[in-house]
Amino acid sequence: MPPTTPTPLIKVDIKKPAADQGVLHNRWHPDIPAVGTVEVGEVFRVETIDWTNGQIKDDDSAEDMKNVDLTCVHNLSGPVAVNDKEGKPAQPGDLLVVEILNLGAREGDEWGYTGIFDRDNGGSFLTDHFPHACKATFHFISNLSSPPFVRFPGLIHPGLIGTAPSHELLKIWNERESHLVEQGEAAITLGSVCHTRPLALLPNAKGATLGTLPKGPAWDKAAGEAARTIPGRENGGNCDIKNLSRGCKVYFPVFVEGANLSVGDLHFSQGDGEISFCGAIEMSGWLDFKCDIIRGGMDKYLTPMGPTKLHVNPIFEIGPLEPRFSEWLVFEGVSVDESGRQHYLDATVAYKRAVLNCVDYLSKFGYSKEQVILLLSCCPCEGRVSGIVDVPNACCTLAIPTAIFDQDIRPKHEGPPVGPKLVQRGSCPRVPYQGKLPVTKNPCMH
Amino acid sequence: MPPTTPTPLIKVDIKKPAADQGVLHNRWHPDIPAVGTVEVGEVFRVETIDWTNGQIKDDDSAEDMKNVDLTCVHNLSGPVAVNDKEGKPAQPGDLLVVEILNLGAREGDEWGYTGIFDRDNGGSFLTDHFPHACKATFHFISNLSSPPFVRFPGLIHPGLIGTAPSHELLKIWNERESHLVEQGEAAITLGSVCHTRPLALLPNAKGATLGTLPKGPAWDKAAGEAARTIPGRENGGNCDIKNLSRGCKVYFPVFVEGANLSVGDLHFSQGDGEISFCGAIEMSGWLDFKCDIIRGGMDKYLTPMGPTKLHVNPIFEIGPLEPRFSEWLVFEGVSVDESGRQHYLDATVAYKRAVLNCVDYLSKFGYSKEQVILLLSCCPCEGRVSGIVDVPNACCTLAIPTAIFDQDIRPKHEGPPVGPKLVQRGSCPRVPYQGKLPVTKNPCMH
Amino acid sequence: MPPTTPTPLIKVDIKKPAADQGVLHNRWHPDIPAVGTVEVGEVFRVETIDWTNGQIKDDDSAEDMKNVDLTCVHNLSGPVAVNDKEGKPAQPGDLLVVEILNLGAREGDEWGYTGIFDRDNGGSFLTDHFPHACKATFHFISNLSSPPFVRFPGLIHPGLIGTAPSHELLKIWNERESHLVEQGEAAITLGSVCHTRPLALLPNAKGATLGTLPKGPAWDKAAGEAARTIPGRENGGNCDIKNLSRGCKVYFPVFVEGANLSVGDLHFSQGDGEISFCGAIEMSGWLDFKCDIIRGGMDKYLTPMGPTKLHVNPIFEIGPLEPRFSEWLVFEGVSVDESGRQHYLDATVAYKRAVLNCVDYLSKFGYSKEQVILLLSCCPCEGRVSGIVDVPNACCTLAIPTAIFDQDIRPKHEGPPVGPKLVQRGSCPRVPYQGKLPVTKNPCMH
Amino acid sequence: MPPTTPTPLIKVDIKKPAADQGVLHNRWHPDIPAVGTVEVGEVFRVETIDWTNGQIKDDDSAEDMKNVDLTCVHNLSGPVAVNDKEGKPAQPGDLLVVEILNLGAREGDEWGYTGIFDRDNGGSFLTDHFPHACKATFHFISNLSSPPFVRFPGLIHPGLIGTAPSHELLKIWNERESHLVEQGEAAITLGSVCHTRPLALLPNAKGATLGTLPKGPAWDKAAGEAARTIPGRENGGNCDIKNLSRGCKVYFPVFVEGANLSVGDLHFSQGDGEISFCGAIEMSGWLDFKCDIIRGGMDKYLTPMGPTKLHVNPIFEIGPLEPRFSEWLVFEGVSVDESGRQHYLDATVAYKRAVLNCVDYLSKFGYSKEQVILLLSCCPCEGRVSGIVDVPNACCTLAIPTAIFDQDIRPKHEGPPVGPKLVQRGSCPRVPYQGKLPVTKNPCMH
Repeated sequence: MPPTTPTPLIKVDIKKPAADQGVLHNRWHPDIPAVGTVEVGEVFRVETIDWTNGQIKDDDSAEDMKNVDLTCVHNLSGPVAVNDKEGKPAQPGDLLVVEILNLGAREGDEWGYTGIFDRDNGGSFLTDHFPHACKATFHFISNLSSPPFVRFPGLIHPGLIGTAPSHELLKIWNERESHLVEQGEAAITLGSVCHTRPLALLPNAKGATLGTLPKGPAWDKAAGEAARTIPGRENGGNCDIKNLSRGCKVYFPVFVEGANLSVGDLHFSQGDGEISFCGAIEMSGWLDFKCDIIRGGMDKYLTPMGPTKLHVNPIFEIGPLEPRFSEWLVFEGVSVDESGRQHYLDATVAYKRAVLNCVDYLSKFGYSKEQVILLLSCCPCEGRVSGIVDVPNACCTLAIPTAIFDQDIRPKHEGPPVGPKLVQRGSCPRVPYQGKLPVTKNPCMH
Repeated sequence: MPPTTPTPLIKVDIKKPAADQGVLHNRWHPDIPAVGTVEVGEVFRVETIDWTNGQIKDDDSAEDMKNVDLTCVHNLSGPVAVNDKEGKPAQPGDLLVVEILNLGAREGDEWGYTGIFDRDNGGSFLTDHFPHACKATFHFISNLSSPPFVRFPGLIHPGLIGTAPSHELLKIWNERESHLVEQGEAAITLGSVCHTRPLALLPNAKGATLGTLPKGPAWDKAAGEAARTIPGRENGGNCDIKNLSRGCKVYFPVFVEGANLSVGDLHFSQGDGEISFCGAIEMSGWLDFKCDIIRGGMDKYLTPMGPTKLHVNPIFEIGPLEPRFSEWLVFEGVSVDESGRQHYLDATVAYKRAVLNCVDYLSKFGYSKEQVILLLSCCPCEGRVSGIVDVPNACCTLAIPTAIFDQDIRPKHEGPPVGPKLVQRGSCPRVPYQGKLPVTKNPCMH
Repeated sequence: MPPTTPTPLIKVDIKKPAADQGVLHNRWHPDIPAVGTVEVGEVFRVETIDWTNGQIKDDDSAEDMKNVDLTCVHNLSGPVAVNDKEGKPAQPGDLLVVEILNLGAREGDEWGYTGIFDRDNGGSFLTDHFPHACKATFHFISNLSSPPFVRFPGLIHPGLIGTAPSHELLKIWNERESHLVEQGEAAITLGSVCHTRPLALLPNAKGATLGTLPKGPAWDKAAGEAARTIPGRENGGNCDIKNLSRGCKVYFPVFVEGANLSVGDLHFSQGDGEISFCGAIEMSGWLDFKCDIIRGGMDKYLTPMGPTKLHVNPIFEIGPLEPRFSEWLVFEGVSVDESGRQHYLDATVAYKRAVLNCVDYLSKFGYSKEQVILLLSCCPCEGRVSGIVDVPNACCTLAIPTAIFDQDIRPKHEGPPVGPKLVQRGSCPRVPYQGKLPVTKNPCMH
Repeated sequence: MPPTTPTPLIKVDIKKPAADQGVLHNRWHPDIPAVGTVEVGEVFRVETIDWTNGQIKDDDSAEDMKNVDLTCVHNLSGPVAVNDKEGKPAQPGDLLVVEILNLGAREGDEWGYTGIFDRDNGGSFLTDHFPHACKATFHFISNLSSPPFVRFPGLIHPGLIGTAPSHELLKIWNERESHLVEQGEAAITLGSVCHTRPLALLPNAKGATLGTLPKGPAWDKAAGEAARTIPGRENGGNCDIKNLSRGCKVYFPVFVEGANLSVGDLHFSQGDGEISFCGAIEMSGWLDFKCDIIRGGMDKYLTPMGPTKLHVNPIFEIGPLEPRFSEWLVFEGVSVDESGRQHYLDATVAYKRAVLNCVDYLSKFGYSKEQVILLLSCCPCEGRVSGIVDVPNACCTLAIPTAIFDQDIRPKHEGPPVGPKLVQRGSCPRVPYQGKLPVTKNPCMH
C-alpha cells in the first residue's frame, strides 16, 4: 500500500524556540528563503505552531496573557516555493491557487485558548471596555467539568495565510503604515475606538524570526524592514476568514518568484471579527495543501487600485462545510458611540456597538461580560455590514445562533432567569472537541 | 367561513399623493397621531408604498432616478398604537414584540427597481466611483426578455420599521446630528468615502408628511424638528436587515405611550450593505403583523449606553427562511483606500474595498460595472466584518453565492471568457418573481 | 406600466361544481381537450381548487372527512397545450420543461386542512392504527386561539402535476393495475400494511369530470377507461414532492401532441410520505408557470424500462428555498412489523415502523396520537431510506426538526413533562400563515 | 499539561487476525464479555477496523471483492460496559445516551473503498442489474491522478453501533429470521428485488469472532445462536444513518447489565440507502465517546410493539454538521417494476426504480453505470419516501446535489455532451480527503 498521509514538508517542534526551528518566520520579507519546494498537484503537509509560539499555557492563570511578548508574533510556517510540472517557478503576476485539503490539531496537542489582552500590552477592539487580561483554555477532547453554557461545532481554519511580498510591495506597506503612525492622534479618525492601542506596528528587529536567513548584514537589513505579520494586506495575511476550512481554495497574487507561501495562526473556531484580538480558539496544528498556478492570473482576474500595480487582494472560494443554524438573535449597532457622539457612516463604531449591545444582553443571563466577549470571539457568530448608505448611520449587526446555548436566550415576558450569577472559576475549564464552552479563567486584575 | 385575509388596518393608494393619504408619514415625531390601534395577539395588515412614493417609474429612462426628490423619503405607513388585552397601551420602558406573519407584493403592483443615485442628488456608498444615475426595473412576474445573467430567490423584508421616538429621544438625535453637520469637513473621518454627500439630513419641513397631524402651529413645530426617516437609530428605523422576513420577530424599545409602530420601504431582495443606496429591489407591498408587549422589557433586557437611558437598540429574531447556498466566492478588503492611504481599523474603508474588488472582478465576465453594483445591492450576498483587531487593518469581506450566475465565475487557467461584452440595453429588462436579473437601464450620463 | 400579474389562463370558481367549470378534470385521458395553449417562454397563471373540490369545510366537525366522496378526486386544472415559438406543438418524445415561477393561496381563500380518512372510506398508510376520521383546519392568517404546539414555515407546492398520457400508455396503466386488483389478497405482499384498503382504484365513470369533452359516446368511452389521478405514474401525477416550490423545474416526458399539462392538489406544507393520505395542508391556490420544450428530450435523457418505450419518469430540479433546520430527532424503523413478523428488505414496513415509533414518542409529550399523525403529515419532516441492503432488514428513518416545537422534545433524565395531557378540542383551531399548529378537530368516532 | 487525546480504551491492530485481537466481535450475543468499563461523563476512544477485517486491498483488482468471505463480517469493537458515577452499571430498561465527540481515520490508514459484490457472494440492492464484482479505492489524501468527476465533502459516521441484546431478545431475532428463511421463495414479497440473495443470514459458527469469550462449550453455544451483525435491529446495529457524525447522540435501549456498547463499520461518506451493499466509503478509524444513562428511560420514552416489551428502537439526535447544497436533481420511482408489473405501495420497488432512473440518466454523461452505482452509494445523496398513500403507487425519490459534479448535469436543449465516453481504467484511482471521485477499478467479470 502506498503511503496515505503526506510526510510533512514542514515539521515543527512545539518545545523548541521558534528561531531555532528554521521553518518559521514572524515577519514578511522577500529575502526569507523558501524552506521547501513543491510542484503543482503535489499534496504536502505543513505543521504550524500557535501564533504566540507557545507563550500561553494550559493553566489557571492569565499572567501569561497579560505579559505576552508580542514582538515575536505571529510565527508562520514556510515559505514554500511552488513550481509548475515543468519545474518552472510561479512568477510575479501569476495567481497561486491554494487548496486546503485537510487540516487538524496536532496529535498530543489538542487544546486551544482564547484571551483578552491587557490594554497596555496588545489591547483589543474593545480594550477601553475590557482592559484586563483574561484567558480561557479549551481541551478539544478531555474532561468535562466546565459548565455547559454553550456547545458548538468547530470549523478549523488558518487565521493567517499568504504569499511573500516583493521588495516594492514591502516598501509600499512600510511607507503607508509609517505615515499613519507619524500622524499620531490626528490619524485616529474613529469614534472612541481603541485609542490607547498603537496605530500600527512598524518593523522591529527585536523578536524577529526570519527562517533560514543567515545572521549578518543581510539579516539585519531584512529584520529592520520586514513587515509585521499582524494585519491582513495585499498578500492575504491575517484575514481571519472564519469559514476558510477543509475544501476551500484561495487565489493569491504572486509577488516573488516561487510565490513563497506561508501559513500559521490556526483557529479551532472563530466568530466574525475575532473581537478579543486573541480571539479565536488559538491552536497549533497541521494542514494538507495542494497548489496550482494560473499563469498571468493577476492580469486576468485582479484590478489593481491606486498608483501601483500592487494594490490587489486574494480571492477566497468557500465550500459547503458550514454548520447550519436555523434561528438567530441579531444585535444591531449604528454609528453613534457610547458617549452619544454621532459618527459619519462609521462601520467600525457601528459594529462595536452591535457587539456591546450583545454583551450587555447576554450578561443578563448569568454570564460574566468577559465570558461573553470570549464567547463572541470564538463561536460561529456572524458580523454583518447591513446598511452602509443611510447618512449618517452605518448599521452593523451581530447574529448569534440560539441553538448553541443550553438555555433559551430569547426575550420573554418574565425576563431573564433570576438567581445567583454564574461564579467565575479559577479552576481549569475543559471543553470537548465538539465544544462545550468557556468559563473564563481568573481574569488578571491589577 | 370566517374571513381569512386580515382586512387592512392601513390601506394605501399608490395613485394618490402621500400627503393626502393620511396613513403615511416620512418623519419621526412623537406627535404624529396613531392611525389605528390594535390589541396584542390581533393580526392586522399594513399596506405600504415604495420608499420614494412612486417617483420611480417602470420605464427605460433613469431621468427619474437622477432627479428624484429626496426631501419626501421614506414614506412609512402608520403609526399603529398597541394595547394589551385589558386595553392598556404599551408604555415607555416596555418592549414591543412585532412578529411578521406574512408579507408580499400588492396585487397589480408586482414590480420593483434598483438604482444608483446621482452624486449630486443622493449619491451612494460608492458615489465617487459611480457618480451617474442608473436604474433597473424588475417585474416579479412578467415577460422574460432579460438576459439570463443571474437568478436568485427573493426574500421580501421591510427595510424600515420602528417605534416612535419620545420628545427627549428626538432632541438627542437632532443635537448629535446637528453637531456632526456643524463640524463639516472636519467630521469626515473616513478614508475617501463619499466626501461629496451630506453628512446628515437634518429636519426639513420641505417635503414633510406627518400623517393626520393637522396643519397649523403644531404641524409647523413638528415638521421643523421631526427627524428624517433615512438612517437607523435607537427606535429601529432603516436597518436594512436583509433576512427580516416571514416568521421573524423584532423586540423594539417603546418610547411613547402606545409604542406607535410604523413600517415601510419594502424590499424584494437585498444584499448586505444595500450599497447603491437605492439598492435593494424597492417595492410597495403589504405585511401581516401580530404584536405582544413585554412589560418593563427595556429594563429587563436592554442596557442603555451614554448619559441617557435612551441609547438602546432593538433586537431581531431571525428564522430559518434563508436560501441555502453551498459555494461562495469571497472578496476581501482591508483599510487601505484606493489612493493607497492607510487607515486605522476602518471597517467602512475595508468594506468599500471588498465591494470594489468584487465589482472589478465580475466586470471581467462581461457585465458592466454598473450592472454589478446593482446586482450586489439586491442579490443575497453577505458582507462580513471578518477581522477588526489587527492594527492597522480592518478586514471586511463580501461573499457572493456562485450558484446565482449562469456561468462559472471562479478563476480558471484560461482566464475569463473572451469575446464581445454584454451590451447595455435601453430596453426594459424584466425579471420573473424568482429573479432573472438586471441589465441596467440606460444609465443617465450627463 | 405594463400588466405585472399574469391574467389567469385558467380561472376556477370554488363555489361552482367542478363539472361545470370546464377547466377541470379528475381523470387522465388523452382525449380531454386542452383548455388553453401557451408558447414556450410565456408566463401564465393557473388557478386550482383543493383536491376534494370543496367537500371539506372550515368547521368543527369531521363528518365531511368521514363521508367524503372519493370518486371525484383529485380535480386538476388544465390541460394546457404548449407550442414552440414557431407555433409547433410539443411532440411525443419531447421533454416539457415546466418552471414554477410563483405560487400561492387564492385571495379570500387562505386556509387549508389536514385529515385522516375513515378506514372504510379512503383509509391511510396507518389506517389499521388510526381508523377514525379526523380533521384539522388551518387559517393561514387568522385568529390565534390555537395552542402553540408547533410552528413551522410553509413551503407551498403542487402535490399533483403531470402531462397527459397517450392511449398506449393509458392502456398499460389500466392493464397493470387491473392485474393487481385481480390478484386480490394474493397481491398484498406487504407486512400488515393497509389490508383493508383497495389495491388500486380502477377507471370509474361515476364522479368523472373530463373538462370540455362533450357528453356522448366519446365521453362515455373516455370516462370508462380514463385513469384515476390518485397515484403518481410515468407522466408525473401525484408525486407529493414536498420541496417542489417556487423556482423549481420539472422535466416531463411528452406522450401526446401539445404535452397537455395539468396541475392541482396544492399543499401549504407537507411532510415526506404525506402519511395520513389527506395529509398535507390541502388548499386551493394559483401557480405561475413558464414552459420550454427540449425536442427529442426523452431519447436524449430518459431510458425506458420494460417492454415499452413508455416506462419512464419525470425529473425534478429543486432549488435553494428550503427552511434550514439545525437539529433533528430521528426515528428509525426496520422491516419487522408490529406483530413481530420479519419481512424481507421491505421499506414500506420499515417506514411505517419509523412513523409509529415517532408517534408513540411524541405522544408522551402531551399530544394526542391523532395530533401527531396530522403533524407528521404536514410539517417539514424528512422520510429517508437509510439502508436497504442488509438482509433481512430495510432501515428507514423519519427526522423531525426539533426547532418547530415549543418545548424541548429531546429525551431527558427526568422523563417527559408530567401533568394533564392536552385536551382534545372541538372548537376550531386556527393557525397563522407562518404556521402555529394543529389541534385535531373532534375526531369522528363511530 | 494534562493529556488531551484520550488513551484508547480499545486499540486494534489492522495486521492481526480479528479473532486474535480480543477486542473484536462479529456476532451479537449477551455472553460476549465487556472488554472495558467506563463511567458516565468519561471520554474514551475506540478504534475500529473496516467491516471486512482488511480483506479488501488498496489495489487494482476486484478479485478480493468477488471472493470476499462474508461469514466474518461485520467486526465490531467492544463491548464497553457503562456505569454511573456511583459505579452502578446501566440496567435493562435504561436508555444509554452515547455522544459522538469526535471521529476520524487512523493515522497511516487514511483510505477507503466502495464496492459492488458479486451476485453469488453477497449481492446488493441491484444485484440483478449489476451482478459483477467491482471496486474503487479512495485515498483520503494522496496523489490526484483520478479524473475529477465529482468532489464532495466526507461526513464520517459509524455504519454500525448498538447495545448487546438480552438472551430473550436474541431468541426473538433468531425465531423471526428463521421463520422468514423457512418460507423460502414464498417470503419474497417484493417485486423483482434481489431474488437471488439469501433472505436472512442465520447464526453461523463459521467465521464467528466472540471477543474474549473463552473457547469451549460456552463459546460453541454462543457461536451457534449469536445473531449476525449485518442488519439493523432493536439494539441499533447496522442503521447506516449517513448524518450520524461528530456531535450527534444516540439514545439506545439497554437490554443487558452494563449496556455493552459496540461499534464498527466506519464510513467516510455514504448516500442514503447505501445501495451497493459495500456501499459507503468503508474505512477503519477511531471514535471518541461520552455516555450517559437515563434510568428507566425505556419506559419513559419508548413504546414497545408486539407481544414483548422488547420490540423498540433507538432514537438519534442529529446535529448541524451537514454539507449545505443549494440545488438538487431529483429522480422519482413508483412501485411498478422494470418488467412493468404493478406492486402495491411498495417503497422498496419505488426506491429501486428511482435509483435505476438516476443511474440511466447519469450514464448519459459519460460515466459507466458501475461508476454511478458506486457514486450513489457513497456521495451525500438523499433517498426519500415522498408519497406512500396513493394506491397503488408508493413514490420514492433520490436527490443528487448538482454542485458535486464538474459538469452541469441538468437537461439541456442540446442533449448530453457527445464524444468518447470515459474509459474504464484499471489503474488505481486516488482521491483526496475532500473527495475527488471514483473511477471504478476494473470490474471483475467472469
